[in-house]
Amino acid sequence: MRIVIVGGVGGGMSAAARARRLDESAEIVVLDRGEHVSFAGCGLPYHVGGEIPDADDLLVQTPESLRAALDLDVRTRHDVVGLDAGTRTLTVWTDAGTETVGYDALVLSPGAQAVRPPVPGLDSPRVRTLRTVADATALREQVDGGARRAVVLGAGFIGLEAAEALAQRGLDVTVVELADHVLPPLEPELASLVDDELADLGVTVRSGVAATAVEPGSASDVVVLADGTRVAADLVVLAAGVRPDTEVFAAAGVETERGAIVVDAHGRTNLPGVWAIGDATVSTDAVTGARRPVALAGPANRAGRQVADAILRPETARPLPAALGTAVVRVGGLTAATTGANRAALTATGIGFHTLHLHPAHHVGWFPGAEQVHLVVHVRHDDGLLLGAQAVGRAGVDKRIDVLATALRAGMTAGDLVDLDLAYAPPYGAAKDPVNLAGMAASNVLDGTLRIWHADELDAVREDALVLDVRSRSEFASGHVPGALNVPHTELRGRLDEVRAAAAGRPVRALCGSGVRSHVAHRVLTQAGFDSASLSGGMLTLRAALGPAADDLLVVDEPALTP
Amino acid sequence: MRIVIVGGVGGGMSAAARARRLDESAEIVVLDRGEHVSFAGCGLPYHVGGEIPDADDLLVQTPESLRAALDLDVRTRHDVVGLDAGTRTLTVWTDAGTETVGYDALVLSPGAQAVRPPVPGLDSPRVRTLRTVADATALREQVDGGARRAVVLGAGFIGLEAAEALAQRGLDVTVVELADHVLPPLEPELASLVDDELADLGVTVRSGVAATAVEPGSASDVVVLADGTRVAADLVVLAAGVRPDTEVFAAAGVETERGAIVVDAHGRTNLPGVWAIGDATVSTDAVTGARRPVALAGPANRAGRQVADAILRPETARPLPAALGTAVVRVGGLTAATTGANRAALTATGIGFHTLHLHPAHHVGWFPGAEQVHLVVHVRHDDGLLLGAQAVGRAGVDKRIDVLATALRAGMTAGDLVDLDLAYAPPYGAAKDPVNLAGMAASNVLDGTLRIWHADELDAVREDALVLDVRSRSEFASGHVPGALNVPHTELRGRLDEVRAAAAGRPVRALCGSGVRSHVAHRVLTQAGFDSASLSGGMLTLRAALGPAADDLLVVDEPALTP
Repeated sequence: MRIVIVGGVGGGMSAAARARRLDESAEIVVLDRGEHVSFAGCGLPYHVGGEIPDADDLLVQTPESLRAALDLDVRTRHDVVGLDAGTRTLTVWTDAGTETVGYDALVLSPGAQAVRPPVPGLDSPRVRTLRTVADATALREQVDGGARRAVVLGAGFIGLEAAEALAQRGLDVTVVELADHVLPPLEPELASLVDDELADLGVTVRSGVAATAVEPGSASDVVVLADGTRVAADLVVLAAGVRPDTEVFAAAGVETERGAIVVDAHGRTNLPGVWAIGDATVSTDAVTGARRPVALAGPANRAGRQVADAILRPETARPLPAALGTAVVRVGGLTAATTGANRAALTATGIGFHTLHLHPAHHVGWFPGAEQVHLVVHVRHDDGLLLGAQAVGRAGVDKRIDVLATALRAGMTAGDLVDLDLAYAPPYGAAKDPVNLAGMAASNVLDGTLRIWHADELDAVREDALVLDVRSRSEFASGHVPGALNVPHTELRGRLDEVRAAAAGRPVRALCGSGVRSHVAHRVLTQAGFDSASLSGGMLTLRAALGPAADDLLVVDEPALTP
Repeated sequence: MRIVIVGGVGGGMSAAARARRLDESAEIVVLDRGEHVSFAGCGLPYHVGGEIPDADDLLVQTPESLRAALDLDVRTRHDVVGLDAGTRTLTVWTDAGTETVGYDALVLSPGAQAVRPPVPGLDSPRVRTLRTVADATALREQVDGGARRAVVLGAGFIGLEAAEALAQRGLDVTVVELADHVLPPLEPELASLVDDELADLGVTVRSGVAATAVEPGSASDVVVLADGTRVAADLVVLAAGVRPDTEVFAAAGVETERGAIVVDAHGRTNLPGVWAIGDATVSTDAVTGARRPVALAGPANRAGRQVADAILRPETARPLPAALGTAVVRVGGLTAATTGANRAALTATGIGFHTLHLHPAHHVGWFPGAEQVHLVVHVRHDDGLLLGAQAVGRAGVDKRIDVLATALRAGMTAGDLVDLDLAYAPPYGAAKDPVNLAGMAASNVLDGTLRIWHADELDAVREDALVLDVRSRSEFASGHVPGALNVPHTELRGRLDEVRAAAAGRPVRALCGSGVRSHVAHRVLTQAGFDSASLSGGMLTLRAALGPAADDLLVVDEPALTP
């Protein structure tokens, strides 16, 4: 049995290692066009930024170490340029000329390549992607050579990692993002927190605008934006997304869908003896059913292992799971993470859902060092099935998203989240963990105990309702919605007549700092006969959703002068 | 509707708050015998240790704040001494004399009290429990007053938190534990890591020995141990466990089981109109079915909320979930956490299971700061159902146990753990997260790909088998099992004849550092016809399981002298 694997990073190498463990007798050949296999692609930005000073630390394995440990035949600088599925042979370009490599089983793990938007000037030598060790080394050399100004095209996960790395090295960094906000998969009210962090890192963010040209110059280039802005750049990082690197295989008859290889639940392509894994393949989204490539290392690595099983012991091989798209990124001191569907994907799919915003502390507030976890959770409107979750904060974010990703995989509902028995001691969480609280809030909305309104309804609410701010007087004075009535929640039961008079028949829309006190207020109001609702996530979410506009809208009362 | 709640901490206060949110018209009375309600009991050790300097920070709510926010009638220093379920009245001792308090619905949340073992001298004024704010304040005063030597009786979670706190304050601390090892619910091979950390904190651990007396003295007391050891102590913390505080209610006809109140899935006792929650009630273990009180804040708090639902809207109230016993503790720089059943509980129940030991890094090893997560996972032997998990380490421990607790609640199997789509970026995890790896290892054992042996079989293995150490020569030289043959895993395929000769017909039992390389070696050996197995968790687990005995057993080779 000769197994040939095209692509020696991530899923490809997982497939090779698993295949060897299953079968000592197999001949296992790994072909990669690059200089290195099994390198830490996710570590490249940290090498640029200096956290991983030595590029050798990114080279997890070498062909020699893989031969010694796993008896793998790893061939770098071997570029597969043709596939004949009939004769089960590959045509491979090497330094020594063209070779033909036969296989019994073929695993395609070609990965993705950087999207190159149709922007003139991207061929300037100052423009680089950040996909290989050579890319990272070259960027470091540009920085070491005196580059002072960088433009990053694209504010996805890799773009922001690159921007942070360059800012850490002291460069003046501008990030350009075509979408409305950084980290486009993130909800805008969370992305706004990332904007603030980027500003603290000294990174300038230009979102909602296209780069239209890179004008090469002698001392530096200029990146031109659609609004006419011109940004000088000593180096430009192109991080505008990736697309499956599959032309060779599509030309050979491998079925693709918008460039991504179509596979079944065991990674099989349409061609006999040919499997495919990783960023180059189509995944089906577990929540929305959408079909798309998912360029994430975790699913690719696990798929590699499972495809080796599918080849060598198909009778017991597990199917590949549907994709949740769980992802996380560090931006300065913040962590931003997501799992499952976001609001846009749910809206596009037409699934009815409720969205909850919470800002609980990552551990009990009375233990030193508590940090807020800004959490957004979507549940299906009829049964509370968890559909997606996102979080941003300085601690405990990855934990909550991993718990929610596990709950999502398990098909848990809001009620199930209430029942999760998570580890509590003061340094780690709370008796009611943020995930429990999300389940409680969602359950309350589902059964009508809590009725919420959302920050994006603010204009309509101000028009049609009384905004009732139940925070303390000092919180109210520090910034409030114009026209809002301030009745601290502790006084509400005694001042219902006043609220009724101010409402004058209109609905009452309560808000507080984070949505906890206004929930209590809503319960008081609704049981007193008011048409009431509580702002999901409170002023914290409202400010984040408004972004810089919050400062224009919100009214700050002057402190009373004391003689 | 008058709801009376006995016990204003944890679950009791959750029940009161939820009841108010559900029903503005209810009269809600909370009776507590103590000075304070709603205080942070889990924070007491940190007040002693100084991390929470101000005791007021432990007082999360006061009767006044609860009246203002939630219209609760909270009465402290109200000690319930009688219950008449027929007339639905309580007899209450107060500073003003005995009162009678009637109820429509009664929630019993009396909690637990410290176990006082039959040790003479525990009434010494130098002996204290750590259950109330007054206890913590008094301990601080003893420390501030010059106490230099402390003995902590009991090495459970609270005992170790107290020991660390006192060591932080500079005291010479001895912990005495009757069980074989500290943190008795933890597997011994993990508890041994906690022992090492306690030693680093300067805490002396005496486990497997009883305290037989406290001899009061004028300047200090002496704690006498069963082996004759005498330990001088300026203060003694009694942390030998808790038991339900239910005598009054049992005497009134509330059904109890070994002192704990028997409740149904909605918290109902045998008496009409009487519910009970928290540490005083019997829980059914989700894995083993064992019935026991679970003294943990999380389940109590969530139960309080659900019992309020059961009282006020029984038609939609969710049942209380079975207990997983998820718990976590910080000891110095270590975190130790557990969920589900441990080896002892599974053995007692007779469930067939496999145990896996892993030591993966909490994030990719090539990113700076990687720390090992020492992970133990138990799965059912026939279908891989997750039964329990424990972990110890310096980072990422609580996250993995929370993910595993979620998986346990969901009824996931080893294969499901493989498929979990957890958040990966270099600072947070790995493309194959420790939880994925645990699922992979367990799946391999279940389907026969991997055969493991365990550290506790070492004596038999040394007698009957060839111990094959597949680590590098330098690792081998740094400490190895006497009589082991060293063949680095990278050389194994070429030296199988040598292994066959050394084995001389005996089985081969492979080991390496953590179990990864010996897994590969096992695959090589078994496919070459050997009777082989791989040591679960490798030398890391073997050393931890042996504890101090490892230094006596393991052979360290002298480095060769170079001229």
